[in-house]
Amino acid sequence: MRQSHLFTKTRKEAPKDEVAKNAQLLIRAGYVYKNMAGVYTFLPLGLRVLENIVEVIRREMNAIGGQEMALTALQDKKIWEKTNRWDDAVVDNWFKTKLKSGTEVGLGFTHEEPLTSLMKEYIHSYRDLPTCAYQFQTKFRNEERAKSGIMRGREFLMKDLYSFSRDVASHDAFYEKAKEAYVNVFNRVGLGDKTYVTFASGGSFSKYSHEFQTVTEAGEDLIYVHEGKKIAVNKEVLTDEVLADLGVKREELVEKKAVEVGNIFSLGTRFSDAYELTFIDEDGKPKPVVMGSYGIGPGRVMGTIVETLSDDKGIVWPKSVAPFKAHLVLVDGKGGKDDAGNVARKEADRLYGALSAAGVEVLYDDRETRPGEKFADADLMGMPYRIVVSEKTLASGTYELKVRATGETSMVSEKELITLLS
Amino acid sequence: MRQSHLFTKTRKEAPKDEVAKNAQLLIRAGYVYKNMAGVYTFLPLGLRVLENIVEVIRREMNAIGGQEMALTALQDKKIWEKTNRWDDAVVDNWFKTKLKSGTEVGLGFTHEEPLTSLMKEYIHSYRDLPTCAYQFQTKFRNEERAKSGIMRGREFLMKDLYSFSRDVASHDAFYEKAKEAYVNVFNRVGLGDKTYVTFASGGSFSKYSHEFQTVTEAGEDLIYVHEGKKIAVNKEVLTDEVLADLGVKREELVEKKAVEVGNIFSLGTRFSDAYELTFIDEDGKPKPVVMGSYGIGPGRVMGTIVETLSDDKGIVWPKSVAPFKAHLVLVDGKGGKDDAGNVARKEADRLYGALSAAGVEVLYDDRETRPGEKFADADLMGMPYRIVVSEKTLASGTYELKVRATGETSMVSEKELITLLS
Repeated sequence: MRQSHLFTKTRKEAPKDEVAKNAQLLIRAGYVYKNMAGVYTFLPLGLRVLENIVEVIRREMNAIGGQEMALTALQDKKIWEKTNRWDDAVVDNWFKTKLKSGTEVGLGFTHEEPLTSLMKEYIHSYRDLPTCAYQFQTKFRNEERAKSGIMRGREFLMKDLYSFSRDVASHDAFYEKAKEAYVNVFNRVGLGDKTYVTFASGGSFSKYSHEFQTVTEAGEDLIYVHEGKKIAVNKEVLTDEVLADLGVKREELVEKKAVEVGNIFSLGTRFSDAYELTFIDEDGKPKPVVMGSYGIGPGRVMGTIVETLSDDKGIVWPKSVAPFKAHLVLVDGKGGKDDAGNVARKEADRLYGALSAAGVEVLYDDRETRPGEKFADADLMGMPYRIVVSEKTLASGTYELKVRATGETSMVSEKELITLLS
Repeated sequence: MRQSHLFTKTRKEAPKDEVAKNAQLLIRAGYVYKNMAGVYTFLPLGLRVLENIVEVIRREMNAIGGQEMALTALQDKKIWEKTNRWDDAVVDNWFKTKLKSGTEVGLGFTHEEPLTSLMKEYIHSYRDLPTCAYQFQTKFRNEERAKSGIMRGREFLMKDLYSFSRDVASHDAFYEKAKEAYVNVFNRVGLGDKTYVTFASGGSFSKYSHEFQTVTEAGEDLIYVHEGKKIAVNKEVLTDEVLADLGVKREELVEKKAVEVGNIFSLGTRFSDAYELTFIDEDGKPKPVVMGSYGIGPGRVMGTIVETLSDDKGIVWPKSVAPFKAHLVLVDGKGGKDDAGNVARKEADRLYGALSAAGVEVLYDDRETRPGEKFADADLMGMPYRIVVSEKTLASGTYELKVRATGETSMVSEKELITLLS
């Protein structure tokens, strides 16, 4: 894409009321726009990153048999009263509104209730199990404060998967598969090194749930990391009993601030009991379905990538999520002027065309702007590779390639570029 | 996909309170689930159709230079007061809710206001124009009644594109391109024959807007069709002056019921005036940006396809939007029993594997169910082609292919199938 066509521009400053580093950088680089505290528009480049993260998650969810669907934002009070989660005294972050008739409706902050209720239509026999469904859906949470940028929004995209199993053993087997899929997701989006499977409290139906916590100063959680085992314990369950369960000693653990980028939770029969979601087992008897829920916020993952991988010059996107793998930058001695005698521009146009023809989509900075500004923007925007075309590179018949993460530069041929970026 | 793995099932009856044919069929076939009046969950097959429609629209919007982004549902009262559209006396279908602080926020029913306001950040010079941005976003409209199934929801997906131009001539040129893109969309989703570019009232800034109206008994609008010119006039503007403008006579027009599947609208400077969205023109003077808005509801398109193309047996999907191009149906003399001696099942499994390997995704009815039920389900669910594998077809070394729309059947080889479905 030609940068001159992109309607967004970089900004020198983020809005004054924006305190989160992730949002400051994303706003300055033209990825998101702040509408209100905790409410962000995803601009074209930002939406590309979000969609790339969504696609990584989607593949992993499909690989464990997830069936994608889309529940609704508007929520029926009657459904939620059955689990006692309608009451604002029980759930304190509802957004509620009213139909013309005066009937109260809520905006979904999670979807166990409507999906369990829906599944009564389709699950009748042990032959219908196990099954699992997931969605990428906008959740609404009426947060008291929303100061973490896109890491904690009042409105945000969530991938939530729900599993339905015949018994605890079958549920546990699925739960382990989901845990592996989550590990794959965080590895693939570039957060693997900093993300720990973290033991957290499990509620009434299982001893533990598992959080995926990424270590960052911007995190709101405290976790205790065991580097050797690559696991962690959430502060809330740091007891002698838990340490014994995990076979670790308190002194082996290091306290770190972290952000919860995903979590998986065994629900037991809490929801199936509430909606009488039962099935007829092979023995002819009705039994309650055993459930689990599995969440990842793609926007929070995006914010966490910015918090943990950016440097003082700007964002550093991993290749798997970058809006474009490379930023092709035209640099010339004519202040970028778009005139016929500008050989560097002619060559950059040609290379852009050749890359596009080879199926390599790059962001092409074809603007009439001075080199220093272009380089600063490329660093701020954070494509994994920067390719410079200038009169200097023209002379050598190669292009300057810079790796954003390391600063390493080299001179490469067109063929090498295409191989690298394909 | 194996139908035995799909968690949805067909139903004999739609919910009693569902009066719209589109929703009745879509619910019975397992495409959507009704949560409340005007609020529908898209089940796996339904989401596939919706995504296919989205993809058709996306390609056409990209082809006219649209940049995809995602605005927010939660709306800032202050922004909407500037155009006087916050007041419930002016806009009667707002859903409103409150932040913890007590601040009122709305749920977006359209997005001219937030996008115009956002564009002040990015549009400064004539060099920044023309530009256009679009999104696929959930809109919320507090409809008094919601009895048209997925054709008029309280919560529904909308593609809305907004254009920003330097002057009226540049706007008009874009408007014509958008009109052509819309014609392409309706042709590609299979509604071209029944959809008319319809002249409607234009508001303060242009004489006409254009609606895309699909003729159907389920429509809520009355249009006057000129078959020869393939245009129509909305009842609201059927005057002698308009007839003269279009060069048509009243007696050439036929009154029809229709549903508005899209509309395009010149906004002039109404919104740019409200937000002081101006640019510095080549002459150094600030001028207001000229805007247009362009909407299509993918869910409404899906409902309209069901209303107009279904028959008494069920849904008939056009190939471009079908969740799967073909429904592979195993039929055998053993009641479908999954045992080793079942040669028809063995062959159907083999063909399913061969099609998958060739990149042809089909819905494979591998259920242990009697043939009559499978055929009825295939007709109800509406894949464009039905392929039958049975002991009879085995003997001939070919498969029975039935075209859902025409009922035409033929015997085809595996190679012919792959060619047809690739």
